[in-house]
Amino acid sequence: MSDAQRAERPTTAEVSVDFGADGLVPAIAQDAESGAVLMLAYVSPEALEATLETGVAHYYSRSREELWQKGKTSGHTQQIRDVRVDCDADTLLYLVDQHGGACHTGHRSCFYRTIDDEHVGEQVFDPDAVYDAE
Amino acid sequence: MSDAQRAERPTTAEVSVDFGADGLVPAIAQDAESGAVLMLAYVSPEALEATLETGVAHYYSRSREELWQKGKTSGHTQQIRDVRVDCDADTLLYLVDQHGGACHTGHRSCFYRTIDDEHVGEQVFDPDAVYDAE
Repeated sequence: MSDAQRAERPTTAEVSVDFGADGLVPAIAQDAESGAVLMLAYVSPEALEATLETGVAHYYSRSREELWQKGKTSGHTQQIRDVRVDCDADTLLYLVDQHGGACHTGHRSCFYRTIDDEHVGEQVFDPDAVYDAE
Repeated sequence: MSDAQRAERPTTAEVSVDFGADGLVPAIAQDAESGAVLMLAYVSPEALEATLETGVAHYYSRSREELWQKGKTSGHTQQIRDVRVDCDADTLLYLVDQHGGACHTGHRSCFYRTIDDEHVGEQVFDPDAVYDAE
């Protein structure tokens, strides 16, 4: 990371986030060590509150329509190092320590292929082994 | 970057991108050298096509409702190194060489503050000087 690491993770949202018409903002999860962009998911006010309170990344699942703790079933949780807000306060950046892989396909990052369909990402777990028990 | 750099930027979209109901997908711009997340904006099919054809980042402005070449007025363009697609093909990742700063506030990255309102980002230009002429 190019900017200074802070000593403590934030626990309150001092910046007023613009959750917009659908009540959600996109949140980018970035590996705090490597800088790799891991995934993008959506965050509701409740998900942001849970993230700040627990120090573990929470999102809102648009398909399941529910608050979702990343890695709750797979164990591939994201410990929050910091939460950033963009200039318009309508996008979040979660700086995280990713346990295992962020992607349900078993890749470290969801961005494991290029637009011209070249495979560039690293597979770190077998999704069949991880998700069989669900 | 943790994964291998490719020799050439992509010029065609082999992966079928899911532009969804509003015809847009979010695109994360990441500095290809430092790994810093610079900004998030939205991309239409036309913006993606223009990005791949020209090798310079294009987006779709939801407020102005038009195709938008990043940095066209400010000169703070983004040269495309690579374009990644996520697992669901509904989010893009632009790996770019950022000229100047990505943020209209003069910061290198739009994510220059934390959720608890601590200023952590680097200001690289004076927005009054850059945007006065527009």
